Amino acid sequence: MQTLTVELANRSYPIHIGQNLINNASLITPHLKRPQVAIVTNTTVAPLYLQTLTETLTGAGVSVLPITLPDGEQYKNSDTLNKIYDALLENRCDRNTTLIALGGGVVGDLTGYAAATYLRGVPFIQIPTTLLAQVDSSVGGKTGINHPMGKNMIGAFYQPQLVLADTDTLKTLPQREFSAGMAEVIKYGLIRDAEFFDWCESNITALMNLNQVELAEAIYRSCLNKAQVVAIDEKEQGERALLNLGHTFGHAIENGMGYGVWLHGEAVAAGTMMAAELSKRMQWLTEQEVNRIHAILSAAKLPLDPPNLGVNQYLDLMQLDKKVADGQIRLVLQKGIGDSVITADYPKEQLEAILAATK
Amino acid sequence: MQTLTVELANRSYPIHIGQNLINNASLITPHLKRPQVAIVTNTTVAPLYLQTLTETLTGAGVSVLPITLPDGEQYKNSDTLNKIYDALLENRCDRNTTLIALGGGVVGDLTGYAAATYLRGVPFIQIPTTLLAQVDSSVGGKTGINHPMGKNMIGAFYQPQLVLADTDTLKTLPQREFSAGMAEVIKYGLIRDAEFFDWCESNITALMNLNQVELAEAIYRSCLNKAQVVAIDEKEQGERALLNLGHTFGHAIENGMGYGVWLHGEAVAAGTMMAAELSKRMQWLTEQEVNRIHAILSAAKLPLDPPNLGVNQYLDLMQLDKKVADGQIRLVLQKGIGDSVITADYPKEQLEAILAATK
Repeated sequence: MQTLTVELANRSYPIHIGQNLINNASLITPHLKRPQVAIVTNTTVAPLYLQTLTETLTGAGVSVLPITLPDGEQYKNSDTLNKIYDALLENRCDRNTTLIALGGGVVGDLTGYAAATYLRGVPFIQIPTTLLAQVDSSVGGKTGINHPMGKNMIGAFYQPQLVLADTDTLKTLPQREFSAGMAEVIKYGLIRDAEFFDWCESNITALMNLNQVELAEAIYRSCLNKAQVVAIDEKEQGERALLNLGHTFGHAIENGMGYGVWLHGEAVAAGTMMAAELSKRMQWLTEQEVNRIHAILSAAKLPLDPPNLGVNQYLDLMQLDKKVADGQIRLVLQKGIGDSVITADYPKEQLEAILAATK
Repeated sequence: MQTLTVELANRSYPIHIGQNLINNASLITPHLKRPQVAIVTNTTVAPLYLQTLTETLTGAGVSVLPITLPDGEQYKNSDTLNKIYDALLENRCDRNTTLIALGGGVVGDLTGYAAATYLRGVPFIQIPTTLLAQVDSSVGGKTGINHPMGKNMIGAFYQPQLVLADTDTLKTLPQREFSAGMAEVIKYGLIRDAEFFDWCESNITALMNLNQVELAEAIYRSCLNKAQVVAIDEKEQGERALLNLGHTFGHAIENGMGYGVWLHGEAVAAGTMMAAELSKRMQWLTEQEVNRIHAILSAAKLPLDPPNLGVNQYLDLMQLDKKVADGQIRLVLQKGIGDSVITADYPKEQLEAILAATK
């Protein structure tokens, strides 16, 4: 098991990464205010891991309230959130009850937001079961829900007490979702860690084969990069926005196609190529660098051709991005592999040309 | 104009108290990130002050989006909250847009919660127009909405940039609502400021006559007490809970009678008498002290006879209180005038006797 700490003064917390973690109650119980938890999960993950986690906890004297939600990005909304509140209230959960998110990014975001807002805040623990959640959404305290007019429009910055990334859970993850998680792994290399990008290129086959040693290393390096960024800029005033490489395009794709049609990581991968293309047109990236990005994302079996939403719909949806300031769409662009910037100072006609070239 | 500061490190903010404040743009504009605001108000307050505030701001070059909600505690819910989100999204408000709450406690709590959660947090300003909001709900960063199963069950701690308590607005406040605010003014004396309680006894007639000098002084002393408590204990881990004198009973009354039937301050006043009665039965308060509390709340024209909800319904509703820990109802009780404690260690049969004596 590897461990790292997200350094946030009195809200610092550990991330444990390794195999067989959800069978280990001693990792969890020291973080509980009282031996009572509500485990929030979904109908896909519950049959796989809910019983194991429940037995782990009840065996250690912890009472468990299970809350099982429907599975899918389309349920990351206020109706599902209310189902969590209802269950917590019906069972008289109080400020010493800990919420545990057992599932992927949707479960983590919903549970974290419920924890941030139930009784104005209760403790919570992330047990991410997808690669995407293990390397990205479970770390850093971004929680929230979607709104019909945009993704993650409603939310809070709220940090967990603990993250347990059990790599065994990736064995049951569908290939397509694994690939979607790889988009975020590769992102860390692209935005700030050229050495890690090189490492990913060398180890992409082992990663795609779920070799546990390389997998744990990739998750550790991803979390380390994210933890460093979050420690510097918890509330996304500056550097944290770099984590959104490919996301402004990606959110437009997800929203424009209807949530759930493209997986988040798939949309981010296509968006990363769009950002790379714009960076190339600005002569910040060489053709060869763009080819390297394309090659590794392809090896991760990610779709790289963005859908044709029309230039106007793209721009309209991109205007909804939370990074928009004074009406300007700010994009994360690449100045090289491992070197990125956020800027609204790019040639608008080149952006439009890229949007117009979608098929 | 009097000014005090709520001391919260990098989230400290000023409270200005006095007449004619909403005509003074220079108090507001230095706190805006960009000259764009959304003013959230309700159908009662809008005809009185929305135009004045809008003209004040537009005259200073600030663009204003008005959002007018229905008036009443029964609208402090997720549907109304969604109306605020919808308006902000439809008008493409971003992280530099400031929300201004213009109204009473419901508007302030809803607006503050919308500000806490829209795009994971945007700045906001409180302009309370009721006595209750000026002395209590606008100060200290508690925001939230009700749930069918309990009051303020969903919310966040989120601090404003500024509070403007314009005492002129109290001239249009209905007598009943003014009295409800007085319950909270008197509360500060009871829980921690015996000298202020004495002052309130001496000046109750002037206060009820809306004498501006005494009124401003009462609001200042109330805010000062609240600011001191909040500075010590922002997230209600300890001393802040004392501000809930009468509230555990009061919330049960509000909920049991149906939100909106009893005003919050009315329910708190009746609850304060119940807490005083229990304190007397524990020999913490003398009969004479209880009589003083009764006399000043009566002079403030507050209803002091709690409704008969039945012992079981009272206990059931009181169990919903956020201060409940490990199933125990914790109450704020008086050890004297100006001296209060929070405790679960009181004779349960005496509590039940008091609940049973309601008519």
